[in-house]
Amino acid sequence: MTVTNVHTEGVRSRTVSWTDPARARFTLRDRDGFEQLRAVARGEAAPPPAAALLGLRLDSVRRGRVAFSIVADEIHENPMGTMHGGIIAALVDSAMACAVFSMLPAGATFTTVELKTNYVRPVVQTTGVVRAEGRVVHLGQQIATAEASVVDEHGVLYAHASSTCLVDRRRATGGT
Amino acid sequence: MTVTNVHTEGVRSRTVSWTDPARARFTLRDRDGFEQLRAVARGEAAPPPAAALLGLRLDSVRRGRVAFSIVADEIHENPMGTMHGGIIAALVDSAMACAVFSMLPAGATFTTVELKTNYVRPVVQTTGVVRAEGRVVHLGQQIATAEASVVDEHGVLYAHASSTCLVDRRRATGGT
Amino acid sequence: MTVTNVHTEGVRSRTVSWTDPARARFTLRDRDGFEQLRAVARGEAAPPPAAALLGLRLDSVRRGRVAFSIVADEIHENPMGTMHGGIIAALVDSAMACAVFSMLPAGATFTTVELKTNYVRPVVQTTGVVRAEGRVVHLGQQIATAEASVVDEHGVLYAHASSTCLVDRRRATGGT
Amino acid sequence: MTVTNVHTEGVRSRTVSWTDPARARFTLRDRDGFEQLRAVARGEAAPPPAAALLGLRLDSVRRGRVAFSIVADEIHENPMGTMHGGIIAALVDSAMACAVFSMLPAGATFTTVELKTNYVRPVVQTTGVVRAEGRVVHLGQQIATAEASVVDEHGVLYAHASSTCLVDRRRATGGT
Repeated sequence: MTVTNVHTEGVRSRTVSWTDPARARFTLRDRDGFEQLRAVARGEAAPPPAAALLGLRLDSVRRGRVAFSIVADEIHENPMGTMHGGIIAALVDSAMACAVFSMLPAGATFTTVELKTNYVRPVVQTTGVVRAEGRVVHLGQQIATAEASVVDEHGVLYAHASSTCLVDRRRATGGT
Repeated sequence: MTVTNVHTEGVRSRTVSWTDPARARFTLRDRDGFEQLRAVARGEAAPPPAAALLGLRLDSVRRGRVAFSIVADEIHENPMGTMHGGIIAALVDSAMACAVFSMLPAGATFTTVELKTNYVRPVVQTTGVVRAEGRVVHLGQQIATAEASVVDEHGVLYAHASSTCLVDRRRATGGT
Repeated sequence: MTVTNVHTEGVRSRTVSWTDPARARFTLRDRDGFEQLRAVARGEAAPPPAAALLGLRLDSVRRGRVAFSIVADEIHENPMGTMHGGIIAALVDSAMACAVFSMLPAGATFTTVELKTNYVRPVVQTTGVVRAEGRVVHLGQQIATAEASVVDEHGVLYAHASSTCLVDRRRATGGT
Repeated sequence: MTVTNVHTEGVRSRTVSWTDPARARFTLRDRDGFEQLRAVARGEAAPPPAAALLGLRLDSVRRGRVAFSIVADEIHENPMGTMHGGIIAALVDSAMACAVFSMLPAGATFTTVELKTNYVRPVVQTTGVVRAEGRVVHLGQQIATAEASVVDEHGVLYAHASSTCLVDRRRATGGT
């Protein structure tokens, strides 16, 4: 993604670019979740549009543990001048959902059925980079759960979250 | 906000514009929550940057009930090709937080301490407009709670949510 | 259930009685959820042990809406002298889970995968009876969601909740 | 507490005993949360009535980490023959709330404003003892959050939870 911020007389603008997401789905279609995420992390497939829009960056991928980060920016602000809770929700949802996905065989799909986030400190522009690590807590045949916490570069906690995913293994081709 | 989507050879871009949020805060500073929201709804003050970024539109403001909508777009998509759960979380958080804010006196502030969303159907581009109405469930001295549901133009349910806000009335100048 | 409270010199005791739950399961085994709940409400089958232990009473059963009540008692108190949040969670879980069950065909089973409760006022002994009405919000093939609110006889709100259930229809014999 | 189960012809009964909770509150009134919990753990003050009713046992108390356990019993069963979700909610609520309380100075009080539990495996009678360890995640001036997980003696996970507490330090006499 390419991002440019323009600031003039109180009006700012940013241009967000993303790639047709059908291309990434085609490129990645036969791989398991872990390999799909690794391909995105290596730049072999484009990140999804929402990640480009929000500025979410896939930082690291291990089986069951996936981290995303975001650089706090004025564009993320709610009316109180702090990062919108929904953007933090997007950060933790990405981290937790991908942590679950990293453990699924090729062909399996999943959907987040429920997400809860606790916000314990406001993220402001001077916070800089915040990072969410999602980790799978439970992986069953149909239900998976995950947790995530959001910290800055000094390890200070800003939010923590848990979620429930519904897994569909009916078209799964691999093991696990 | 001005939004333009450019699509070329699988690469798309959108330019998002927003106004220095300090201006809106200055304009609105002496009003209670309801009047602040009404000023934004009437276009007298700019929406916050996150609303411009995500495409959240403030539809209606009543005391204790506030509605936001969003037009589903490729730019909101997660890797599965559906609207990112975090963007739906932003929609319901905006609706619920503003519903609480619409009942607060001038000078009072609040913060969302916790947000839970249930996702019951995927929102895709063909879904079109989805709308969240937030409603205050409990308003206490320090704690307020709210609920929201997300429906399309036919009333089909996509998500529902609840949240907890911490209210700070120490600098409140008005009643309630 | 028969309940007797004995109070002597600061030590109190209560005897709780319940019926072997295998009997109720046998009696109800061929009925759909609605008919099972109605049989319990009419006294044709014993309530489950946990209901006897906690004093949960099944008040009313409609398809998709089930109400339970409890009489606040010293025995329910946490260290602060208010009704333990877990007992209120049991009340709302019973109401929501049975609301889902009331819409399931014979042979279908379900399990609560997630439950969130907001506590907005303490329930104390003088509160008297509190009642939770659970209502189904979404009923899908695999996932159902429900909400509940807890009110006293004057309609004052004490708690509200939402939950997610996983439904298993593989042994279902009826329609829906 | 003294507990006796009587089983005759499909009807069982149990007598639960507890101590007037006003006595424990009087005994413990000048201590901070940690010392209050330690006094209960050592048997110097009676556990609250709800703990006696449900069979919750305070296992260990450290600052910010408190564990409770329960022995799965027929009396805890819901209609499906597994431990009622509300009783598991009581277990995790006790562990998390007491973890927060263990870090509060004398005179400070708190209340659980929100509790979410994920249920990942059913607890049945043969599960035996399950144990919840609650740990404080964030402790602020007004808001504290905590997490808990429920495991059996082999470390198998049955549930995990998070909660938000509102802390009132206005009558606090000690530090922190």
